Amino acid sequence: MATMAASLRMKTPIQSPTTKTHRANFSPRQSSSMISYKQKPIRRISCALIEPDGGKLVELVVPESQRDVKKREAMDLPKIKLSRIDLEWVHVLSEGWASPLTGFMRESEFLQTLHFNSLRLGDGSVVNMSLPIVLDIDDSQKNRISGSTSVALLDSSDNPVAVLNNIEIYKHNKEERIARTWGTTAPGLPYVEEAITGAGDWLIGGDLEVIQPIKYHDGLDCYRLSPSQLRAEFEKRNADAVFAFQLRNPVHNGHALLMTDTRRRLLEMGYKNPVLLLHPLGGFTKADDVPLSWRMKQHQKVLEDGVLDPENTVVSIFPSPMHYAGPTEVQWHAKARINAGANFYIVGRDPAGMGHPVEKRDLYDADHGKKVLSMAPGLERLNILPFRWPHTTRHSRKWNSLIPPELRISSSFRVPRCGHLQRTGKTHQMDSCALVVGKCWLNTMIVWLQTTLVGSLNPSLLESLTYTNGSVLEA
Amino acid sequence: MATMAASLRMKTPIQSPTTKTHRANFSPRQSSSMISYKQKPIRRISCALIEPDGGKLVELVVPESQRDVKKREAMDLPKIKLSRIDLEWVHVLSEGWASPLTGFMRESEFLQTLHFNSLRLGDGSVVNMSLPIVLDIDDSQKNRISGSTSVALLDSSDNPVAVLNNIEIYKHNKEERIARTWGTTAPGLPYVEEAITGAGDWLIGGDLEVIQPIKYHDGLDCYRLSPSQLRAEFEKRNADAVFAFQLRNPVHNGHALLMTDTRRRLLEMGYKNPVLLLHPLGGFTKADDVPLSWRMKQHQKVLEDGVLDPENTVVSIFPSPMHYAGPTEVQWHAKARINAGANFYIVGRDPAGMGHPVEKRDLYDADHGKKVLSMAPGLERLNILPFRWPHTTRHSRKWNSLIPPELRISSSFRVPRCGHLQRTGKTHQMDSCALVVGKCWLNTMIVWLQTTLVGSLNPSLLESLTYTNGSVLEA
Repeated sequence: MATMAASLRMKTPIQSPTTKTHRANFSPRQSSSMISYKQKPIRRISCALIEPDGGKLVELVVPESQRDVKKREAMDLPKIKLSRIDLEWVHVLSEGWASPLTGFMRESEFLQTLHFNSLRLGDGSVVNMSLPIVLDIDDSQKNRISGSTSVALLDSSDNPVAVLNNIEIYKHNKEERIARTWGTTAPGLPYVEEAITGAGDWLIGGDLEVIQPIKYHDGLDCYRLSPSQLRAEFEKRNADAVFAFQLRNPVHNGHALLMTDTRRRLLEMGYKNPVLLLHPLGGFTKADDVPLSWRMKQHQKVLEDGVLDPENTVVSIFPSPMHYAGPTEVQWHAKARINAGANFYIVGRDPAGMGHPVEKRDLYDADHGKKVLSMAPGLERLNILPFRWPHTTRHSRKWNSLIPPELRISSSFRVPRCGHLQRTGKTHQMDSCALVVGKCWLNTMIVWLQTTLVGSLNPSLLESLTYTNGSVLEA
Repeated sequence: MATMAASLRMKTPIQSPTTKTHRANFSPRQSSSMISYKQKPIRRISCALIEPDGGKLVELVVPESQRDVKKREAMDLPKIKLSRIDLEWVHVLSEGWASPLTGFMRESEFLQTLHFNSLRLGDGSVVNMSLPIVLDIDDSQKNRISGSTSVALLDSSDNPVAVLNNIEIYKHNKEERIARTWGTTAPGLPYVEEAITGAGDWLIGGDLEVIQPIKYHDGLDCYRLSPSQLRAEFEKRNADAVFAFQLRNPVHNGHALLMTDTRRRLLEMGYKNPVLLLHPLGGFTKADDVPLSWRMKQHQKVLEDGVLDPENTVVSIFPSPMHYAGPTEVQWHAKARINAGANFYIVGRDPAGMGHPVEKRDLYDADHGKKVLSMAPGLERLNILPFRWPHTTRHSRKWNSLIPPELRISSSFRVPRCGHLQRTGKTHQMDSCALVVGKCWLNTMIVWLQTTLVGSLNPSLLESLTYTNGSVLEA
């Protein structure tokens, strides 16, 4: 760590803003260029990207010419209404993040996921698959489906989104699913409360045909690049290494240093053009995580300010919902990025972890994520880059030692210990606590932005920003 | 099922008792022949037995010449006293049932077991390993060990049993271990209550050197053949297929039919001499299972009465403790038998399962065991023989359809629904209920023995035997 910090201070140049390119890099594919990608196949560069799991990227959206027919077909089938999280999974499946899965899991896939975190393919090879991607139905839905072999999936406005074919219905043992996925059955797991506790007692698997690309119309769809689009982008940039960084919070100083240093290390290893996939998670997150729209604004700032070089950085949204299942989930995060073309994956302390919902401790051992990732079946092709950065809030001295002097934050400045507040907060304080956590991250981000922009730090100015709302970002 | 029953009625001859050989076959290796096996290597037959996991059978008992030295060495080390279950695991490890494990798991093996039910070896190959084989210590034991790299393991009389070398101490997250192993954290799991709830907060892994073969001095040690001894026995018999049958209860009619039919099927497949390994589990079992000594008496009867042919049956004790962890545990049961030379494994309904400790249902789906087994990493070499037999107690009509007419039990006779009694029994009734369960199995066994011996059934005679104790077996 000390060595890295020293080499950083010596070698890492502070990027000057390169405002003329950042916009294009932040949203590399607008819809027009997406179409042009589909129309003109990209020339393969000599260093081919890592192969998707199963050898071929799964894409489940029906050709545009068949959409109307498929929609009419759907209207005649038994119907299942999707929750927001269900829709996010349809999105994930439709673009092949979970390749070679071709739809919601049947029982054989579900059992392999729960017990082995992996799937054995027909040829005997193994791909990683650690999270169940399943669709639940209740007794009455099951009865309505009756003898049908296909069902239609509807969005919240009752529009048909997809058809699920060759269906298989099997029991949904929620307790076992939760225990084997999270390693606990304690009440208060965010995904469980949102998507499992009230779910039906049956799961329905099958092969998906998705009627049209999933869109959310939230102003961020243009940032939601599919694995196929990301691969095209990496190829266009002649990337000979792609290193992915999953995050669900604003970029902080530690992240930025880590990503910069990773590129330096890859160059030292002989790669000519390592490209960073900065890949914020865009699906369901818990209430006290910073909302996606704010995170995206912050990521945009990071590129605008040139701290990450837009020339070799692609920012895009990963559409998966978040389980907070620690070592089990980090495998999913890594596996999905293989399908998007990444052959290096950065993993830090306690990935996808959270505090234990009942006990006063972290739910997972902070080192288990990277250990499990390095041993996971089906991820042998992926280069795992473990990294441990100190807590910004608890170990500010250690933290500061990583930061080049010209960017270093005065040690007299302390960000509130939000994690602590959150854990000790009573239920009725959770809302305000969530805001504090949000602000805490925003503080970190503001500190970092200010430091980068101004090159010096005024603690009293920062203090004054601490409890204003997030709109300071737009100032 | 119907086909099999029909073919059984037509083809399966009723064995006449072959009393002259049964004794030798039931306990094929007395201590003298064990020694002769070690002194004279057995000639390999042309059809080699299946290779042990990792290519070489692990054996951890130090040579006799070094025992005294090792014992003195142990006395100078920090000491850990073993529970009965710990000792059973030392036994399991010492004989290579868990090959290629060379001792209690270190964290890397523990994590792979919890998450993947398998271990990746140095050469990239994968072996199955679904149950954590771990040794817990508490804070004060951890402190006493301090900087030592080895510890001595003592039995209940403080005799040194083994030395654990190159130790690694790591956290024992009991909740996560239980959730990932059993798929529930509900209170009342027998192994959890016996061995985990009160266990220390640390686990200690390392390489074992076992000072002398583990013996229990209960009159049954001669039946505890090691994998190496079993392999020698199968080779001596020129077995070209070995099919293992794990059980923790008396053999009942369904079992017997199943084993007989399996041999028939293997002969039809072209094997010349399939040998049955009838392999009762001998370690920890829950209070309401029939004790090992009674089960062994019953198994002996089965051979004496010639229902299983002693010429091609080896009865031996599997020293592992029982987890009752269903689909997770059945993998361990199968994997251990590979190490003993079995290349076929019979699996029935709900293997290693039990009732949910809190809810009124089975803990596991009755079909998951065989499904998980057929998909488990590291068990690809093993031929899984799934079989479903009806409950004796609940579906007597279906059950009867399997039984040749001359052995069939009158449908007016019903064995008490002990499972039901047990589940509805209040806590204070558990003891008597456990006895009922024991008797229930004994009833089944008595019915079966009587039917086999007499060739006809007298329900009133059976009724009179129902609530006498197990000593009728010796009558």
